[in-house]
Amino acid sequence: MPTPLPNPRTTPRFAGIATFCRYPRMEDVPAGQPIDWALYGVPFDAGVTYRPGARFAPRAIREASQYVKRFHLEHGVDVCDKLSLCDAGDAPISPYHLKETLDGVTAWAATLGAQGASHPKLLAVGGDHSIAYANIKATWLRRGKPKGGLALIHFDSHLDTVDTVWNEKWGHASPFIRCIEEGLIEPKAMISVGIKGPLNTADDLAFAQKHGVRIVTRDAAAQDPTWKFLTDFVKGLGTREAYLTFDIDVVDPAFAPGTGTPSAGGFTSHEALSMLRALRGMRLAGADVVEVLPDRDPAGITAFLAAHIMFEVLALDACVR
Amino acid sequence: MPTPLPNPRTTPRFAGIATFCRYPRMEDVPAGQPIDWALYGVPFDAGVTYRPGARFAPRAIREASQYVKRFHLEHGVDVCDKLSLCDAGDAPISPYHLKETLDGVTAWAATLGAQGASHPKLLAVGGDHSIAYANIKATWLRRGKPKGGLALIHFDSHLDTVDTVWNEKWGHASPFIRCIEEGLIEPKAMISVGIKGPLNTADDLAFAQKHGVRIVTRDAAAQDPTWKFLTDFVKGLGTREAYLTFDIDVVDPAFAPGTGTPSAGGFTSHEALSMLRALRGMRLAGADVVEVLPDRDPAGITAFLAAHIMFEVLALDACVR
Amino acid sequence: MPTPLPNPRTTPRFAGIATFCRYPRMEDVPAGQPIDWALYGVPFDAGVTYRPGARFAPRAIREASQYVKRFHLEHGVDVCDKLSLCDAGDAPISPYHLKETLDGVTAWAATLGAQGASHPKLLAVGGDHSIAYANIKATWLRRGKPKGGLALIHFDSHLDTVDTVWNEKWGHASPFIRCIEEGLIEPKAMISVGIKGPLNTADDLAFAQKHGVRIVTRDAAAQDPTWKFLTDFVKGLGTREAYLTFDIDVVDPAFAPGTGTPSAGGFTSHEALSMLRALRGMRLAGADVVEVLPDRDPAGITAFLAAHIMFEVLALDACVR
Amino acid sequence: MPTPLPNPRTTPRFAGIATFCRYPRMEDVPAGQPIDWALYGVPFDAGVTYRPGARFAPRAIREASQYVKRFHLEHGVDVCDKLSLCDAGDAPISPYHLKETLDGVTAWAATLGAQGASHPKLLAVGGDHSIAYANIKATWLRRGKPKGGLALIHFDSHLDTVDTVWNEKWGHASPFIRCIEEGLIEPKAMISVGIKGPLNTADDLAFAQKHGVRIVTRDAAAQDPTWKFLTDFVKGLGTREAYLTFDIDVVDPAFAPGTGTPSAGGFTSHEALSMLRALRGMRLAGADVVEVLPDRDPAGITAFLAAHIMFEVLALDACVR
Amino acid sequence: MPTPLPNPRTTPRFAGIATFCRYPRMEDVPAGQPIDWALYGVPFDAGVTYRPGARFAPRAIREASQYVKRFHLEHGVDVCDKLSLCDAGDAPISPYHLKETLDGVTAWAATLGAQGASHPKLLAVGGDHSIAYANIKATWLRRGKPKGGLALIHFDSHLDTVDTVWNEKWGHASPFIRCIEEGLIEPKAMISVGIKGPLNTADDLAFAQKHGVRIVTRDAAAQDPTWKFLTDFVKGLGTREAYLTFDIDVVDPAFAPGTGTPSAGGFTSHEALSMLRALRGMRLAGADVVEVLPDRDPAGITAFLAAHIMFEVLALDACVR
Amino acid sequence: MPTPLPNPRTTPRFAGIATFCRYPRMEDVPAGQPIDWALYGVPFDAGVTYRPGARFAPRAIREASQYVKRFHLEHGVDVCDKLSLCDAGDAPISPYHLKETLDGVTAWAATLGAQGASHPKLLAVGGDHSIAYANIKATWLRRGKPKGGLALIHFDSHLDTVDTVWNEKWGHASPFIRCIEEGLIEPKAMISVGIKGPLNTADDLAFAQKHGVRIVTRDAAAQDPTWKFLTDFVKGLGTREAYLTFDIDVVDPAFAPGTGTPSAGGFTSHEALSMLRALRGMRLAGADVVEVLPDRDPAGITAFLAAHIMFEVLALDACVR
Repeated sequence: MPTPLPNPRTTPRFAGIATFCRYPRMEDVPAGQPIDWALYGVPFDAGVTYRPGARFAPRAIREASQYVKRFHLEHGVDVCDKLSLCDAGDAPISPYHLKETLDGVTAWAATLGAQGASHPKLLAVGGDHSIAYANIKATWLRRGKPKGGLALIHFDSHLDTVDTVWNEKWGHASPFIRCIEEGLIEPKAMISVGIKGPLNTADDLAFAQKHGVRIVTRDAAAQDPTWKFLTDFVKGLGTREAYLTFDIDVVDPAFAPGTGTPSAGGFTSHEALSMLRALRGMRLAGADVVEVLPDRDPAGITAFLAAHIMFEVLALDACVR
Repeated sequence: MPTPLPNPRTTPRFAGIATFCRYPRMEDVPAGQPIDWALYGVPFDAGVTYRPGARFAPRAIREASQYVKRFHLEHGVDVCDKLSLCDAGDAPISPYHLKETLDGVTAWAATLGAQGASHPKLLAVGGDHSIAYANIKATWLRRGKPKGGLALIHFDSHLDTVDTVWNEKWGHASPFIRCIEEGLIEPKAMISVGIKGPLNTADDLAFAQKHGVRIVTRDAAAQDPTWKFLTDFVKGLGTREAYLTFDIDVVDPAFAPGTGTPSAGGFTSHEALSMLRALRGMRLAGADVVEVLPDRDPAGITAFLAAHIMFEVLALDACVR
Repeated sequence: MPTPLPNPRTTPRFAGIATFCRYPRMEDVPAGQPIDWALYGVPFDAGVTYRPGARFAPRAIREASQYVKRFHLEHGVDVCDKLSLCDAGDAPISPYHLKETLDGVTAWAATLGAQGASHPKLLAVGGDHSIAYANIKATWLRRGKPKGGLALIHFDSHLDTVDTVWNEKWGHASPFIRCIEEGLIEPKAMISVGIKGPLNTADDLAFAQKHGVRIVTRDAAAQDPTWKFLTDFVKGLGTREAYLTFDIDVVDPAFAPGTGTPSAGGFTSHEALSMLRALRGMRLAGADVVEVLPDRDPAGITAFLAAHIMFEVLALDACVR
Repeated sequence: MPTPLPNPRTTPRFAGIATFCRYPRMEDVPAGQPIDWALYGVPFDAGVTYRPGARFAPRAIREASQYVKRFHLEHGVDVCDKLSLCDAGDAPISPYHLKETLDGVTAWAATLGAQGASHPKLLAVGGDHSIAYANIKATWLRRGKPKGGLALIHFDSHLDTVDTVWNEKWGHASPFIRCIEEGLIEPKAMISVGIKGPLNTADDLAFAQKHGVRIVTRDAAAQDPTWKFLTDFVKGLGTREAYLTFDIDVVDPAFAPGTGTPSAGGFTSHEALSMLRALRGMRLAGADVVEVLPDRDPAGITAFLAAHIMFEVLALDACVR
Repeated sequence: MPTPLPNPRTTPRFAGIATFCRYPRMEDVPAGQPIDWALYGVPFDAGVTYRPGARFAPRAIREASQYVKRFHLEHGVDVCDKLSLCDAGDAPISPYHLKETLDGVTAWAATLGAQGASHPKLLAVGGDHSIAYANIKATWLRRGKPKGGLALIHFDSHLDTVDTVWNEKWGHASPFIRCIEEGLIEPKAMISVGIKGPLNTADDLAFAQKHGVRIVTRDAAAQDPTWKFLTDFVKGLGTREAYLTFDIDVVDPAFAPGTGTPSAGGFTSHEALSMLRALRGMRLAGADVVEVLPDRDPAGITAFLAAHIMFEVLALDACVR
Repeated sequence: MPTPLPNPRTTPRFAGIATFCRYPRMEDVPAGQPIDWALYGVPFDAGVTYRPGARFAPRAIREASQYVKRFHLEHGVDVCDKLSLCDAGDAPISPYHLKETLDGVTAWAATLGAQGASHPKLLAVGGDHSIAYANIKATWLRRGKPKGGLALIHFDSHLDTVDTVWNEKWGHASPFIRCIEEGLIEPKAMISVGIKGPLNTADDLAFAQKHGVRIVTRDAAAQDPTWKFLTDFVKGLGTREAYLTFDIDVVDPAFAPGTGTPSAGGFTSHEALSMLRALRGMRLAGADVVEVLPDRDPAGITAFLAAHIMFEVLALDACVR
């Protein structure tokens, strides 16, 4: 079921109320029409350990995404022909309360757009990385609580498996330790790509290493320019669905200055897009793009890149339909 | 009929798809419910004589307006209690064609939201000042082609009565000469406030002077800090409706850096708001706020001020209901 | 006891580790030397209702304050000759926990620098306005729990007496309702200057009005350019000490773009400084300057103004020594 | 004939009225002295489909180019020793009229600086990409209307062969379809380098493919890091002259944020310079550098890069003299 | 002799190589035609005591001044009809050497454009305030070394009469002590307007006070909104010529963020323009506008204001012709 | 002797007076405790040939370095466990005097922190590159005036061996010619990495070539992606100590916009970090990181990268302890 889009050669891309990539609002999708993906924002940044502001990312990305076109040249697929896509608005949040918000987002997302033939997958747009827990849990619930948990492809400069920071278990340094503890993610089917130093302590590696998470550091990735570690991972998945989480700070600050815990020496944007394209063939269970901070993004290039990463993720799904 | 608004103490102002001031989209207003004002954008800047970019203003102002609250403290009126307001989206435009766009906007706006008991007034958000012609003409049509034309309150650094620039009669230097020529505006019921030099030529004053437009220069306004020239003008109107056009460049670049033809020595924002409040009692036929240029607005203060000026305009109408 | 300062004609103002106004660190003040004021930062912004980032304000203001000189021309007083001043660093905070942080700051500040002959007054640099509660409580404790509470001079666009927002009683919309409830502030000896609309609801005025807080709106202040309402207030205080809280958003966004909940139509910086000078003669119990948001301050003028407001506050105390 | 340049160790690069690369104004070149290249600006952006503002690029690039030095280290050639270069100012334009402007620029450029022994080649500095049509046509006229048209080396994220946008045939999406239709460019001798998705529709590839344009996508280029596709192309040209058009958006937004229709995942600046150096040996007929948008270029790096690309282009010509 | 200007309705203001206000280059003025004012830049900032960068001001102001029109509305005078104006380029400087540069600028300026009937007055565009010494000395020489020195109208936040800073007598804190010592300026005919604190030391007032300089602080000026102190000063001058020096930091950082030693609580831009207009009737000997720092001017409003201040200065001269 | 650091999970990285990387101030290191490295700032930019402002870099880098963690993932070493590090504040400078400043810094640095068992190495943070001379000379003195001079690893876009600019021998274009002349550096043990054109003249290569400096241009480095030229150089050093000087402009403007003499086509930040890691095994005598210009660094990524480069340099030393 294709996505109806305004024709940019009639309605300019700079016109109109901004939804993600100009996709229709979920409430405007005709009743009964199945939706393949529901995109939604989580304007929440109370989980950060350094610079806040990602609460404004969903709006900034909606605006930047107006210039995202529909035909994916490299995959040769028209994403809007293949997929029925919509913008479901923003999840309800309680800005002062971390765990309550995560539970609220999970509950809201668990049934979002699901009715009749419509069982959309979820693409959450952060907010900080803490919100990945909620979208992963909702995805896990919607995909029938897959035994052992979901596989996970994780692009990030940081492992995000710290147990607690400032006496808090639910911040943006901790989503994956929580997901693994709860069985939402299977650590042996998890790959963390782009990890780099420095770290607060060598111990921050221990949890991931102990549970068998595959860590591909940024330096290691540089040694494998055809991204064999990714194509191998996809091969290993077979038809198993995997969740994809993309922290924009995996990209270098030159390409993504607008983020709260930047990391020097990251990927170029072309490397990032190219790695995503290398995942072709995988089956997505759900996804998120997080950690965009508009107030540190004077030329808007971070939100713009994030919008294109969302598109690449959707294109992966379009490729296997 | 009040405007339903999300409760900011439940749904934070930084959440959700951005409409003007969080007012409902016009298509979400229940059928049959009268609308008092339809707000719409005109993302068009092909009329500028200097710096373009105002096409991005409707979106920037939608975003900045999320922080506009509903109770007008100084007038003591809850604008959303008094008025049914909505965001009608953006007018259709043809970005390469000035006159075609103005005609298209006029035609679209002439019937916008008008059905049954609903005859909303129009608040257009530019775009450059050329679009005032379209909203004035649509207003004039909707108000029954008032004989002699509408009265006009015009805040601006420039008279905008130049006949042609670069062989073009429809640019942003010319809306009021066109309106007067077509009888949409009665020049003797027009006041231009905040006019300042330098000018390209002394002749640029001739048209307005000859047709009896009241010109209150920025220096003259400074001599009348209680704005008697405005209260007198309102008194003179009696119950006659007037259109209000607000070019953000009437405010000093310190308060509104994001504009395309700035003018040094303008009003402060408090002077601007205070002048608008001095109009209390007038009857509005329609209005516009124009010439915001987001790419020159690094801290967003111009779009933010424009959003509040829109609110002040609506509050004037709320005061007389 | 004068404050030792590096000579700017030997050590340039752009050199050295930045402390507030180049005052010595508290740990560098010789033991036994009385301190008149301890300045400290509270890098905390978990109380905001809109845009976060004020956690970075103490550092930004330290940097901007390097250019604050010592001789107050208008009062004719050398502040560093009259007062022994120091930078006590930043208070301990728990970034994820509002109430715990406020209690922790209160406890830490309650005894800060108090030993022997040294009973410094406290100037807290926010952070968001929620932190005023902590510095007021610490001040109240240090000044011997004055019966009925402290008098308060409050510069702000907002009343900050909302009971709860998002189920939270301790955010930046609520410090003064909490202070009044706890008897830290006497509402009849409180004046709120610069209040302006729009408000979320008319009810937001009720608490302050009911308890007798004097509200001077921004429009009312404009009618009294010699600030008689302030000199009268100071006269009314006699020798009673008052706490001064300054929310930078009372100043217009043109002068203070870097703030999280800006308000259009505010004071100019000269009006703000001039009002502070009009308080000459008052006795200060303590003070804070809050709500600076460096990420929205592209030219640094907000932090720079905040630094000078701190200096004006200290000068008031120097005038009565 | 060398270009006289102020000595930067006498006249600092930050001094003086800014011309392109500090080259003399054309009117200051002594009569009778042959000019090799005339550089001129086309401050025109009425052809854009998204973000306008490139009209300010010629001035921004003049300013940024002050730091362009004269000796090309990698080619080992002093460009100003080899070539007589000048700044011919800006072409006449009619900002409201696309086709009229293109015709006017063509007519003006067709004879620019041509007198006696002086037959300068033309380097046009946009403005948006629509202006390439004018400089190509002027070049084609000046080079004697070469049969079949000029060869073309085209660096861009976009093919720019869309027939019409918004009922307009002359915008910046269309210069090469127009050039090919008019026989100014031979499509079989045209190579488009850096093309990337997404596209509005797969059909946007059809014209170029049908006419035999060689398309080297950004991904394909990444597979050929020694740029054999370019050295082969140059070899294929032999002594045939080619026109070079460089749209700055072929470079990633990290390197060129200041552009109107950015494209994620572009070349690095070093890749861009390195590709230009790989063209060594080719014979240039003319060139342009377009689509710089200063208002989105907060640190000026886009204009700075564009200035160096101009220098690389000139160096190619210096290499074959 | 009028100044030939490109017609902005033919040649847009955003086109062409940028000279001050689009006035002709001095070398393009026909030989033998008298010039009334030569405008020139001094791209020099080695005299600063805090933030450098004013060396880029002449270019930034040239660019910003493209939008300065010719007819002064408030004075009712067409400046370009009355005066023959030109851009003489930038003075020679030696960026590492303060005194050598000042002497070099003085020598160069002393004869600039003086030949036959042409004895232009000089308007220097800094650069930091140290360069005022050079332009004042050149003016003094050109005006025949008026006995006792020139009268001086000085707009500034700072007195600039510090003897030495960091063992240097020629920095931007010292031009007027040097001018007075050398008899170029008569202190009793000098007025310093807008002076404000804080100061490094009370002693910084001593020199000016001892020599009879009239100091009008910013606070004092606020008490005299019709600027009687200025009209009185002009009356006192009679037909005596005075030099006018305008340090942009006299204006508040909201209006002029781009400056190196900003001062909180300054004039608004309207106050500044209005004070300049109040000088109507005075005879100018020469002038400068200094201390614009483009790198701290993200929206360009400082350079834009500086350009208009230059125009106001020229208009004063046009009024008495 | 480890470096005591505040625990970031107790004291957030955004809290406290900012020292380099949160290391203790030198005066806070307990007497008698040996220090391995003293980091100090040189807020001096009077040596620049183009854009000034690097005087503000030490403070900007202190602030940006708050997010530098302690465990180097790629080398597997906890830098703060291995090394005793401190922030020694800023060197004394005389902002108007180049040579005096260099001599003053040298004298101050020559004995900095040296007492008893403590003979710290020096890491200087510029300031412009002229200050490298001072830190190299101080290092040379402290390391016992090694015969023939120190070995030097030099990352830069420029050779910095120009004899004089504007009659000045001590500017930032000249530090290495001076060091070589004085025997502080042995040119045959010097490697300059990342050199790129254009140059002012081919002659600028002569000095380095004549004295046997190894020049690895940016293009040459691109041909050797495993950085064999560096590992070979390190091998050649054996146990000989080398000084490392890092000019941030060796990195592309996309990664380091905030610099005064940028150079197009530089390294990515990952290439830079990767080259530094390739030096593993070398023995450092001292180091500097220079040419960061905060006013051109709108998102702070340049200072952030510089802080990480400092950390990489320290990690090299930690690897050989």
